[in-house]
Amino acid sequence: MTTDAQILSALRSAENGGVSGAELAQQIGISRAAVWARIEELRQLGFEIEASPHLGYRLLDEPDLLLADDLLARLGRTKVIGRDIRVFAKTSSTNDVIEKLARDGVKEGVVVFAESQTKGRGRLGRQWVSPARKGLWFSVLLRPDLRPQETTQLTVAAATALWRAIHEQTGLQPEIKWPNDILIRGRKTAGILTELSAELDHVKYVILGLGLDVNMTANEFPADLRKTATSLRIESGKPVLRAELATAILRELDRDYARVCAGRFAAVADEWEEHCTTLGRSVSIHVGDRRIRGHAESLDEDGALLVRTEHGHLERIIGGDVTLDK
Amino acid sequence: MTTDAQILSALRSAENGGVSGAELAQQIGISRAAVWARIEELRQLGFEIEASPHLGYRLLDEPDLLLADDLLARLGRTKVIGRDIRVFAKTSSTNDVIEKLARDGVKEGVVVFAESQTKGRGRLGRQWVSPARKGLWFSVLLRPDLRPQETTQLTVAAATALWRAIHEQTGLQPEIKWPNDILIRGRKTAGILTELSAELDHVKYVILGLGLDVNMTANEFPADLRKTATSLRIESGKPVLRAELATAILRELDRDYARVCAGRFAAVADEWEEHCTTLGRSVSIHVGDRRIRGHAESLDEDGALLVRTEHGHLERIIGGDVTLDK
Repeated sequence: MTTDAQILSALRSAENGGVSGAELAQQIGISRAAVWARIEELRQLGFEIEASPHLGYRLLDEPDLLLADDLLARLGRTKVIGRDIRVFAKTSSTNDVIEKLARDGVKEGVVVFAESQTKGRGRLGRQWVSPARKGLWFSVLLRPDLRPQETTQLTVAAATALWRAIHEQTGLQPEIKWPNDILIRGRKTAGILTELSAELDHVKYVILGLGLDVNMTANEFPADLRKTATSLRIESGKPVLRAELATAILRELDRDYARVCAGRFAAVADEWEEHCTTLGRSVSIHVGDRRIRGHAESLDEDGALLVRTEHGHLERIIGGDVTLDK
Repeated sequence: MTTDAQILSALRSAENGGVSGAELAQQIGISRAAVWARIEELRQLGFEIEASPHLGYRLLDEPDLLLADDLLARLGRTKVIGRDIRVFAKTSSTNDVIEKLARDGVKEGVVVFAESQTKGRGRLGRQWVSPARKGLWFSVLLRPDLRPQETTQLTVAAATALWRAIHEQTGLQPEIKWPNDILIRGRKTAGILTELSAELDHVKYVILGLGLDVNMTANEFPADLRKTATSLRIESGKPVLRAELATAILRELDRDYARVCAGRFAAVADEWEEHCTTLGRSVSIHVGDRRIRGHAESLDEDGALLVRTEHGHLERIIGGDVTLDK
């Protein structure tokens, strides 16, 4: 953990009590002057830190900023996800950044956040609107021992992780729409873009790209999205501290990824089915030029959707655009 | 076509007759002095070109070199494969070069040859020995409208294309070993490495990497490969002109790729089955940590191998290490 992360961690755990400069210096193993200098830097970044002769340093307020140090301090220990966190003010697409890291041989679990993306992408190269500091736009590098067709398991795991983190942080009840959308009251608030690099029978790496509309107000959505998209702020009625939500997601994702890697995908799938509004419904699915209509019955062991078609046979769907029929 | 390619093309089609500098200049639309300068350059590259006052320029002998111009001239018109050909003297791996081109948005069909590779790869990151000028080491970029699990179709198509080109150029009768090896009398002489970049339901691009042991002599193979590997030269008893073989392969691959894209994979699969020594045999297959034993029955519509296991059920194999049991 960096010095800044250690200071923030100590200030947060001090609750209302405050921590003296001497205590901080001793805990971290730096001089009191160095503590003072770091505190000044944190104030520059927007952290409101009071220094009182009696109580020492107290953290009064935190900016809604994504800072790698701060995210690492909040996250604490995880198995894989978020052991390495990088934050960009602006980038083309966090999936592109992760792809470069993947090719450079960076270890799995690295997470790249961007405060804004100039070329945020959804599935099939569609544009993903990602205005500065209003949402969470980030990507995670995974190197699972899976076959390409099993990669859907990771999308399903990411959806359950998102579900738990959003529910825990906001009290909202999201719905999962197969395979990669999180809705609240029928409107999309988060999406997952899964990209893979593979040989025929062997995944080299997977990039999970996550996009969450967190603090956007209704008029911050483009006009054509207002009926179909929403944000956690709109739905919960109050702004959400993104750093707290982000680390909650990484923690949950770490847990789900461990379950998938241990061969316990069935447990993830059970949880997923509980929150999924696609199952048990009549659906239309566009896969390339094909349109499949039928009844969404269940997930199979690889996370594919099993749809009983109008003609009565069971079709296995790996991805596509799903519309819920009335 | 470049000037060099046009000159070579004209010299070849002149057969024994020769072409005058004036004819060449007029055909190509450059000055006679420019023709002379290009001919000099071609001689520097090893082309033996005679200039006689009566017959004009005559091509007496060609070096066993891969030159982009020359390959383009030999190839002639194709639909997709080889419209853009690039030759490197040495590179890490031609698949890596194509991957960079793919990310830069280069059109499908581009082919990268290397006279030697420093990090030639087989499946699962295994080393592929690729000594200078002894074989064909090249990769092709494809952007098919396929789902990831259909990519095996392209490996199968590449194998049939290799079969036809080798048979046509050498008269040999290769055998195909599922999914990606070409054997002659039981020894490996060529391999195919298929790598893909994809979303869950949609291939972004596929890289077909092909490696052929063409002119290696027995003692040019590493000792540990001598019993299992062979070259076309060893098997046919004479050296093979690599440029001619290379363009034959590209031509056949263009034909098979067109069949796959037109939804006529079944025709490719039929041809494949004719030459495949895996079907109808008892096989052991290693897929990751699993070992599957059974009887190789047929290919399915996506090019996967259908194996009837010892327990009687049909297993669908997308990739793996196949051993033919006696």
